[in-house]
Amino acid sequence: MITRMSSLFLRTLREDPADAEVPSHRLLVRAGYVRRVAPGGYTWLPLGIRVLRRIEAVVREEMDAIGAQEIQFPALLPKEPYEATNRWTEYGPNLFRLKDRKGGDYLLGPTHEELFALTVKGEYSSYRDYPVTLYQIQTKYRDEARPRAGILRGREFVMKDSYSFDLDDDGLSKSYQLHREAYIRIFDRLGLDYVIVSATSGAMGGSASEEFLAVAETGEDTYVRSTESGYAANVEAVVTPAPAELPVEGLPEAQVHHTPDTPTIETLVDFLNDKAGLGRTFTAADTLKNVLLKTRQPGQKDWQLLAVGVPGDREVDQKRLEASLEPAEVAMLEEADFAANPFLVKGYIGPKALQDNGVRYLVDPRVVRGTAWVTGADKVDHHVVDLVCGRDFTPDGTIEAAEVREGDASPDGKGTLVAARGIEIGHIFQLGRKYSDAFELDALGPDSKPIRITMGSYGVGVSRLVAVIAEQYHDELGLVWPRQVSPYDVHLVIAGKDETVAAGAEKIAAELSAAGLSVLLDDRKATPGVKFADAELVGVPTILVVGRGLANGVVEVKDRASGERTEVPVGEVVEHLRGVTGH
Amino acid sequence: MITRMSSLFLRTLREDPADAEVPSHRLLVRAGYVRRVAPGGYTWLPLGIRVLRRIEAVVREEMDAIGAQEIQFPALLPKEPYEATNRWTEYGPNLFRLKDRKGGDYLLGPTHEELFALTVKGEYSSYRDYPVTLYQIQTKYRDEARPRAGILRGREFVMKDSYSFDLDDDGLSKSYQLHREAYIRIFDRLGLDYVIVSATSGAMGGSASEEFLAVAETGEDTYVRSTESGYAANVEAVVTPAPAELPVEGLPEAQVHHTPDTPTIETLVDFLNDKAGLGRTFTAADTLKNVLLKTRQPGQKDWQLLAVGVPGDREVDQKRLEASLEPAEVAMLEEADFAANPFLVKGYIGPKALQDNGVRYLVDPRVVRGTAWVTGADKVDHHVVDLVCGRDFTPDGTIEAAEVREGDASPDGKGTLVAARGIEIGHIFQLGRKYSDAFELDALGPDSKPIRITMGSYGVGVSRLVAVIAEQYHDELGLVWPRQVSPYDVHLVIAGKDETVAAGAEKIAAELSAAGLSVLLDDRKATPGVKFADAELVGVPTILVVGRGLANGVVEVKDRASGERTEVPVGEVVEHLRGVTGH
Repeated sequence: MITRMSSLFLRTLREDPADAEVPSHRLLVRAGYVRRVAPGGYTWLPLGIRVLRRIEAVVREEMDAIGAQEIQFPALLPKEPYEATNRWTEYGPNLFRLKDRKGGDYLLGPTHEELFALTVKGEYSSYRDYPVTLYQIQTKYRDEARPRAGILRGREFVMKDSYSFDLDDDGLSKSYQLHREAYIRIFDRLGLDYVIVSATSGAMGGSASEEFLAVAETGEDTYVRSTESGYAANVEAVVTPAPAELPVEGLPEAQVHHTPDTPTIETLVDFLNDKAGLGRTFTAADTLKNVLLKTRQPGQKDWQLLAVGVPGDREVDQKRLEASLEPAEVAMLEEADFAANPFLVKGYIGPKALQDNGVRYLVDPRVVRGTAWVTGADKVDHHVVDLVCGRDFTPDGTIEAAEVREGDASPDGKGTLVAARGIEIGHIFQLGRKYSDAFELDALGPDSKPIRITMGSYGVGVSRLVAVIAEQYHDELGLVWPRQVSPYDVHLVIAGKDETVAAGAEKIAAELSAAGLSVLLDDRKATPGVKFADAELVGVPTILVVGRGLANGVVEVKDRASGERTEVPVGEVVEHLRGVTGH
Repeated sequence: MITRMSSLFLRTLREDPADAEVPSHRLLVRAGYVRRVAPGGYTWLPLGIRVLRRIEAVVREEMDAIGAQEIQFPALLPKEPYEATNRWTEYGPNLFRLKDRKGGDYLLGPTHEELFALTVKGEYSSYRDYPVTLYQIQTKYRDEARPRAGILRGREFVMKDSYSFDLDDDGLSKSYQLHREAYIRIFDRLGLDYVIVSATSGAMGGSASEEFLAVAETGEDTYVRSTESGYAANVEAVVTPAPAELPVEGLPEAQVHHTPDTPTIETLVDFLNDKAGLGRTFTAADTLKNVLLKTRQPGQKDWQLLAVGVPGDREVDQKRLEASLEPAEVAMLEEADFAANPFLVKGYIGPKALQDNGVRYLVDPRVVRGTAWVTGADKVDHHVVDLVCGRDFTPDGTIEAAEVREGDASPDGKGTLVAARGIEIGHIFQLGRKYSDAFELDALGPDSKPIRITMGSYGVGVSRLVAVIAEQYHDELGLVWPRQVSPYDVHLVIAGKDETVAAGAEKIAAELSAAGLSVLLDDRKATPGVKFADAELVGVPTILVVGRGLANGVVEVKDRASGERTEVPVGEVVEHLRGVTGH
């Protein structure tokens, strides 16, 4: 197959798009793979669609290989199933909702759990029918608050989502494991550098949910791994090891101190150590910082106050906080909120005022019974020292909201944590019976009793993968596609205006095509400089230059990744490139 | 490739779905190809998606073969481009509109003219860039008033839409012709029985727009063709030949007659001939029936009265009427409308009251100057005779609203018309400069002057084709797929519980698969009767039965279409089936 650049719908750009934050976005736009249509909405141009299709094919092959069966749902879905599971409400503003001409409520599917469950319920009835795994490669919609980075986080995107349906937990474990292995094969075949991390807190079971994160500095996800064990988790899923509770008897009394000019934790600690005359040394970790927020449950109008107490040496991690409070919305307090709640003394908020006024108060897991804290005394310029948890205050519960830091102890007790950033490319999840309960998805057992089906949920961000691969495979000159997803096998540059050169190049292109290689043939009337720059930008892994050397019977093969150039006799070029490209 | 029915996500149904009106709908649901999710929204099950993909592949190959380049737009589109062309309004209730979280207006693309034009404008600038043809195979959305017949007319469906961009009309003609030939190849390859009919009235140029209609009694479109020439047209596009104008001088005076008990054209004609004593014979064709309607322009709130005058021997054809008035909405008058306009005397409405009261009055093209009519006299039980067009009344224009009938003269003057029904499967259209004007899509010419680009628009209903083929290829037992779109090459039925039979069948399946044939292997624990019935229903064109004959070294090959059975020695079955299936 030969595509001629003289007629290809491709115009490369010299300038980076103004809104491009990350290399993949910049390069996919400049090299003419995608174009922006709306926030989070992109058009796939001819080069882009070829890469997308190749990735889809890999995903499809590996899903078929584990016996998953392909189906396809509409994207436009009626409200009712999503109401049955409360997701119509819980999805909040991330869901695109619309009405049809008769006023019926519809949505654009963000994921299809409901439809998969209902479809299996519609077709299957006996335990003999199970297990079954279904998948689709389909366009999904999410009204992201911050669509960003081109196709990395769009509002319309292609996902492979699959669901397993099993009679029991053992079956679910097997289905989960099959998907885990299929995902490893997919991401390995695509040449990705990735990690598998735990994606849920321990409460749901350690192996119930794992994410595949492509390693990328530009990633939105942060994950940590242990220096000594196999522990790896998305920071959102890290469970803070709680210290043992201590007896409260015999601990010093809580005392309020006048602490002028201590607007920050640092100035407070300095004051306590230098001027308070307490005869003890404090660190920021001895202080308890109370952060005031408000939350709103999906579908509710009113906001509720929430106070989160974390050790003063740690910031609140917004993503961990939000993950802990899902599906509720979280917002910072505004001046009006403080005005409406005068007991909140900004900078000096302490547990007492919170509890006296009925504000829900959740604390870091390190704040256990018997620990003593320096914290706000609910009065300007005053702090309280030796406020003991379980004696002087009783939080309403704990919350994973404090930042996770490199050097923290690994939650499995082995080693310490190191952090890195990644992009979520896959997620496997033992969903259990949430959806089969909602729709009473039962199989009739051998004893004629119903068996509630258990589900697994598995997703791969197919269109995102185009960007993720670009993120890992590029250099300062442009894209450098791995062979298995490159839009073409060979980029043949005709260097020179000589008729003989053009004819020779055409002949080689035809021979390569006949040998089963796809060829992007730069037959444009442009200077060699322009053509070489475009070849580097477009990123086909093998560049074949047919130019003056042809007179001496040689052509040049350039490896896009290494930059290595090889002169090859023209009679051997097809065989040589078949070897290079593996055809 | 072997698919085992024991694990295939397929449950055939014995009963027709309650809402199924046409054979394709009934059979595609019963045979487990599709399932309904919402009005006009269907899920593709494993068998269905295989047929859909095969059709897509044929369409893609033929589009690539004419040099069209594949791209893909989002389905979720911003309002602005559609506002620029007024289609945001003109599309009326057929357009799915929605708002994003920030209140921005979006739509689900019904067709993508705007985006194609804008994208070409974004990439191309010089005359040297042209011509170019782009296409996409993509999911489209239309909020049909009456989604019907399963996937024949859905609200979410897959279309191939392409657009050609040319510098001049000659180029457009060539692009149009290329598409016409590609469509012929596509529909021929799919084995369809279809006609190519003119789709626009002469006003736009005879060859500017043609539809490909699959011949089907259940079709929504009616087309006519000449008994003597190549003329063929959608009835919506038939132009009524207007008779020559006549002199009005010397024609009898118009006279009002008391015509009691003449509520219908038939009773009126009888009265005139039998009781009026006029000494002439009238037919229904001599009467002028005035039908009162109201219309509303897109985006407007108010309705306008409209009177349509047609010869009394013809009904108003709702589809021709609507096509003539597009994009305006049309509705019948309600009692309140008559009450508000007391000059409208129901059953006796004549041109006089209409024109005296400023009601827009459009007539059939047969109503030309000098023709005399019997029509309403705007008074109960009264009609006027010899009311002459151009003398006694002057219509505001003509309208193609009267029914077209078999036996009518062909508009090209050759022969008479015969009618049949069809389903639109393709449409090719010389769009011209509507969209390039809207977006100022120009190419810089060799003389540095801008050249306004001219566009062609071409569509194939890809998902609809699954149903259309089913509509043409089925019998009373089930579907009968043409080989080129069948979900499998061979349906292998294991008939019998004998272990040897099962083992022999598995061996044959493996050999067929190795020879490149796709095999649907019925390895279920079901009776041969159930298996045969399902095989007939599912419709794979070749059924291979492996049963008791195996002991004697033979298997049976059944042709699904003809029912013909052939005994084949087991050693020759692979070769035999390679021959039958063309592998």
